[in-house]
Amino acid sequence: MAWQPRDGYRAATDPVFLAAACAAKPGESVLELGCGVGVAALCLMARVDVAVTGVERQVAYGALARRNGIDVVDADLTALPAALRQRSFDHVIANPPYYGPGTPSGDAGRDAALREETPLADWCVAARARLKPGGWLTMIHMAERLPDLLAGLAGFGSISVLPLTPREGRAASRVVVRARKGAKGAFQLLAPVLIHEGATHLRDGDDYSATARAVLRDGAPLPFG
Amino acid sequence: MAWQPRDGYRAATDPVFLAAACAAKPGESVLELGCGVGVAALCLMARVDVAVTGVERQVAYGALARRNGIDVVDADLTALPAALRQRSFDHVIANPPYYGPGTPSGDAGRDAALREETPLADWCVAARARLKPGGWLTMIHMAERLPDLLAGLAGFGSISVLPLTPREGRAASRVVVRARKGAKGAFQLLAPVLIHEGATHLRDGDDYSATARAVLRDGAPLPFG
Repeated sequence: MAWQPRDGYRAATDPVFLAAACAAKPGESVLELGCGVGVAALCLMARVDVAVTGVERQVAYGALARRNGIDVVDADLTALPAALRQRSFDHVIANPPYYGPGTPSGDAGRDAALREETPLADWCVAARARLKPGGWLTMIHMAERLPDLLAGLAGFGSISVLPLTPREGRAASRVVVRARKGAKGAFQLLAPVLIHEGATHLRDGDDYSATARAVLRDGAPLPFG
Repeated sequence: MAWQPRDGYRAATDPVFLAAACAAKPGESVLELGCGVGVAALCLMARVDVAVTGVERQVAYGALARRNGIDVVDADLTALPAALRQRSFDHVIANPPYYGPGTPSGDAGRDAALREETPLADWCVAARARLKPGGWLTMIHMAERLPDLLAGLAGFGSISVLPLTPREGRAASRVVVRARKGAKGAFQLLAPVLIHEGATHLRDGDDYSATARAVLRDGAPLPFG
């Protein structure tokens, strides 16, 4: 159970899929950029025995993440403090903010968490700088941002894209992108993971696919390739 | 029935899928970059009443395409003759060469047709230059080249990617990319089209999916989004 702000941006299922897609092994080090209240970090720590360091520029969210047991650095990912810049990690994970609705919600925290103010390329650059050689970046984002994500992955190789699709036959709604720092492996576009079974929505959560249910309810890893 | 060289690069199914993915309407103009012996152009002309102009730098292939009824310009797509540079088209289609095997086959024509000597970005630039505003580019390529394809699509919008997947659950082997010159629509990653049914290969052509069979045997259009 994660502490979350009563108002403002709430964790949906994306951080859970992000955590499930990170292939961290016990004892490895993980950095989460933009950790928010720490949902992805907590999910990952529940599945694998790893220490997660989070970076969050919204101090109120960072405070909640810290209360949830995450080692949080209050910072903007484009201006990390020197102490963090001297460290490198086996894995970096990130669920960057999506474009929010056109009109402000009246909640500055929610708006900042949903709005993209830092370009995606800056997220990739920060991740690359903090990864060990051969370390893995795992990101989740809206599928429509895939071209921008791929454009930001200079210096990475062995890139694979796992589409998350609401239902059979539909366009992908989200993409999980994994990339390895300094690797040379070919790009792979994997088979999509369906989130819901059946052609129409029955009842909330009652029609998750077996894979989605395993990830969301049982904390299983997300099969990746 | 298309005339093809007895030795060298033979048309596989990719030009057929390319033609099936082009949404040309009767009477529209179509340019094929790197038309080879004209398989994609012939398939498209069999399905829709359009005139196809082909560009092919290998004169022997161009001659066969001409014999097959295509209006062929013998030229390198990076140095089109002035007469062609004064024309613009409703559609551009292309199936650029893939990297061939590491060792030359001993057939110079086959090697040139399979080897990528012109960067993918140049194909996109040439296509954009020859398209009318709002015109559509349709390309097919190896799935592992998707990042390079997307990187080349500056000046295009409403980009959509249709993965072609050999079998259920596998990574995509090919991608068909459609993009509209000057458009602003969001990127879409569509649900993959399966080429074969079942988990294992039974016999050549006997296990095509219904969609693949409709395209390959009946000349149906490829459902795109």
